[in-house]
Amino acid sequence: MEKHRLEAFSDGVIAVLITIMVLELKVPHGLGLAALEPLWPVFLSYVLSFVYIGIYWNNHHHMLQLTHTINGKVLWANLHLLFWLSLVPFTTGWMGENHFGQGPTILYGANLLLCAVAYTVLQACLIRHQGHDSPLARAVSGDVKGKASLLMYLLGLLAAWLVAPWAGLAFFVAVALVWLVPDPRIEKRIAQ
Amino acid sequence: MEKHRLEAFSDGVIAVLITIMVLELKVPHGLGLAALEPLWPVFLSYVLSFVYIGIYWNNHHHMLQLTHTINGKVLWANLHLLFWLSLVPFTTGWMGENHFGQGPTILYGANLLLCAVAYTVLQACLIRHQGHDSPLARAVSGDVKGKASLLMYLLGLLAAWLVAPWAGLAFFVAVALVWLVPDPRIEKRIAQ
Amino acid sequence: MEKHRLEAFSDGVIAVLITIMVLELKVPHGLGLAALEPLWPVFLSYVLSFVYIGIYWNNHHHMLQLTHTINGKVLWANLHLLFWLSLVPFTTGWMGENHFGQGPTILYGANLLLCAVAYTVLQACLIRHQGHDSPLARAVSGDVKGKASLLMYLLGLLAAWLVAPWAGLAFFVAVALVWLVPDPRIEKRIAQ
Amino acid sequence: MEKHRLEAFSDGVIAVLITIMVLELKVPHGLGLAALEPLWPVFLSYVLSFVYIGIYWNNHHHMLQLTHTINGKVLWANLHLLFWLSLVPFTTGWMGENHFGQGPTILYGANLLLCAVAYTVLQACLIRHQGHDSPLARAVSGDVKGKASLLMYLLGLLAAWLVAPWAGLAFFVAVALVWLVPDPRIEKRIAQ
Repeated sequence: MEKHRLEAFSDGVIAVLITIMVLELKVPHGLGLAALEPLWPVFLSYVLSFVYIGIYWNNHHHMLQLTHTINGKVLWANLHLLFWLSLVPFTTGWMGENHFGQGPTILYGANLLLCAVAYTVLQACLIRHQGHDSPLARAVSGDVKGKASLLMYLLGLLAAWLVAPWAGLAFFVAVALVWLVPDPRIEKRIAQ
Repeated sequence: MEKHRLEAFSDGVIAVLITIMVLELKVPHGLGLAALEPLWPVFLSYVLSFVYIGIYWNNHHHMLQLTHTINGKVLWANLHLLFWLSLVPFTTGWMGENHFGQGPTILYGANLLLCAVAYTVLQACLIRHQGHDSPLARAVSGDVKGKASLLMYLLGLLAAWLVAPWAGLAFFVAVALVWLVPDPRIEKRIAQ
Repeated sequence: MEKHRLEAFSDGVIAVLITIMVLELKVPHGLGLAALEPLWPVFLSYVLSFVYIGIYWNNHHHMLQLTHTINGKVLWANLHLLFWLSLVPFTTGWMGENHFGQGPTILYGANLLLCAVAYTVLQACLIRHQGHDSPLARAVSGDVKGKASLLMYLLGLLAAWLVAPWAGLAFFVAVALVWLVPDPRIEKRIAQ
Repeated sequence: MEKHRLEAFSDGVIAVLITIMVLELKVPHGLGLAALEPLWPVFLSYVLSFVYIGIYWNNHHHMLQLTHTINGKVLWANLHLLFWLSLVPFTTGWMGENHFGQGPTILYGANLLLCAVAYTVLQACLIRHQGHDSPLARAVSGDVKGKASLLMYLLGLLAAWLVAPWAGLAFFVAVALVWLVPDPRIEKRIAQ
C-alpha cells in the first residue's frame, strides 16, 4: 500500500490540532495591555504544546521518509498516535487555565507520555513491516533517545506529583529541548 | 477524471471532523482530578466516534486504492458520505452530554446507519463507473460484511429504543470491532 | 507556475469551511427528541450551504482539471473566491438562527451572489492566462449557465426583499439544483 | 529531504488559520440588518488579516517553488513562521472587538512584525541550505522590499503608540498593498 494518503491525512490532523489550540487563547474583553496578563499561563502552555506537536510532526515526517510501503496495522498505529495527540489541546487548555496546577500538570504529562508510547508503537509497526535490516530499522537501532524520553516523562510525572508542578514541567521542557532537532540518525540515512 | 483531489479533499474534511470533535471536551473549571469526572461520558463517546471516523478513513483509503478514475456521480456520492460524517461531532456531543440517554443514543445510531448507507452508495457508484469485473468489484463481491453491518445498526436502533441505550451501544461497539481491521479482501487485491 | 499547491490550499480551506459550519448546530441541553425541534432551521440552512460549498468544490475541481499553469493574478482571484466562501458559515448561521428572517436571507443571497461573481472572475483570469482557444475557454464559451445563475441570484434577492424570504430561498435552491451536476461541458473536454 | 510534506503541512495550517478567523464573526442575535452594525470593526480586521495571511501563503508558495530540497533547520524555521501566523486570529479578534483601540492595535502590529521577521529567517535558512548562487538567492538578493517592510512595521508601531491607532493601521495597510502582488522577482525566475 502507498504511504501518500497516510501522510496527507496525518498532516491534515496535525495542522488542525496545532491551530485549534490557539482557540483556547480567548480574546479578552479589556482594552489595555493589562487585559492580557491573565493569559500568560495559557500562552506559555500554548507555546510548549506547539513545540511538542511540531516535534511530532517533524519526526513523523522523518520516519515516513524512510518508509516506502505501509499496511493495515500501520494505519491503526498511526490513528492511535493521532488520538493521543488530539487530546493535547484539551490537556493544554486545562493546564493553562489552572495556572499549571498539580492535577492538570500531571494529566498533561500523562498525555505526553501516551503520545510517546504511541509513537514508539508506530515505529515498531513500521520496522516490523519493512524488516529489521531496513533503512529505518538501522537508523533508529538502539533508540536510546526514545527510551530515555519515556523515562524522563515518568520522572516528570513523579516530580509533578511528589515535588511540585514546576518540577514536572522542567522534565517536560527538557524532553522538548532534546527533540527540537529532528532525528539526525534519520537525516543521515536520507542523505545516503 | 483523476482521483487525486477527491482523496485530498476527503482527507481534509475527515481530518477536520476527527479533530473538532475534541472541542466538545470542554476544559473544566475545577482543579482537582475530580473535575474530570463529569467528562467521562463525553470522553467515551469521543473515543467511539474517533474509532468510527478512523474506520471510515481507513476503508475510504482502501477503496480508493483500487480506483483509477472517477466521474461526476462519484464526486456527489462522496460529498453525500462526507455530509453524514460531518454530523457525527454533533450527534456524539449530544449523546455524551446526556450520558448516553435514550433519544441521543437513537439519533447517534441513526447517524451511523446513514453513514453506512452512504458508504454503500459510494461503493456502488465506483463499481458502476469501473465495471463489474474491475478489481474493486471483485474484491467486495457479495459484501456480506457491509450488509451485515447495516442489519446490526438496525438491530442496535431497535435495542436502544425497546430495551435500553446500553443495548443499542453494544451493537454499535460490535460493528466498530468488526471493522477495526481494514477490509482484508481489498488488501489482498492491492498486494496482487 | 504549477497549480498543485493552489489546489491543495483551496481543498484545505474548503474542507475546513464545510466542516466548521456544523459547529453552528449547537448541542441542545434537553434529552428528548423534542430538544432537536428548534434546530430544524439551522439544520436546513446547513444542508443548503453544504450543497453550495460542495458545488463550488466540484466546479473548482473541474475547472482546474483543464488548467495546466497559473500566475500571480490567478492566486489572488482564487483567494478572492475563498474569501466570500469563508463568509458562508457566518451568513448561514445568522439565517438559521433567525428562522429564515428577511434581513438574514437577503444577506445570505448577497453572499451567494458575491461567491458567484468571484468564481466568474477566477474563470476569466484562468482563460486570459491560458488563451482564448485553450480547452477551458472552449469548454465554457458562452457560459449561459454561469450568467443565468447571476441573474437568478439577483431575482432571488429582489424576491426576498419585495415578496418574502421563502420566495428568495426558492431561487437560491433552484440555482443549487441546476449546478448539482458538475459542468458537463468540462467533463466532456476532460474525456477527450 | 523532499519539500513536499513541508508544503502540504504549511498549506494545512494556513488553510485552518485563514478559516477559523471567521469564527470571531459571531452570529448576532438581532434580526434586522442593524444587528450587523457592531460587527463592522470585526469584519474590517478580518478582511485585513485575510489579506495578510493570503500574502504569506502566496509568498511562501513562490519561495518554495524555487526550492528543491530542505533540511531540519528549514523545518523549524517554517514552524516558527507558522507559530506567529497562528497568533493572528487572536490579535485580530482582540483588535476587532475593541474597535481598533490602541493597545490591541499595537499588539496586532507587533504580531505582523514578528511574522515578517520569521519569514525573513525562513528565507535566510533556505538560501543558506541551497547556496548563495541558487535561483532563490539571486531572486531575492538585496531584498529591499523585505527590509522596507520591517521598517514600515516599526514605523507603524511607533505611529500607533505616539499618534493614534489609525496612523499605525495606515502603515499596516500600506505594507499589505505593497505585497499584494506576489514577488515578481521570483515569478521571473520561475519562468526562466
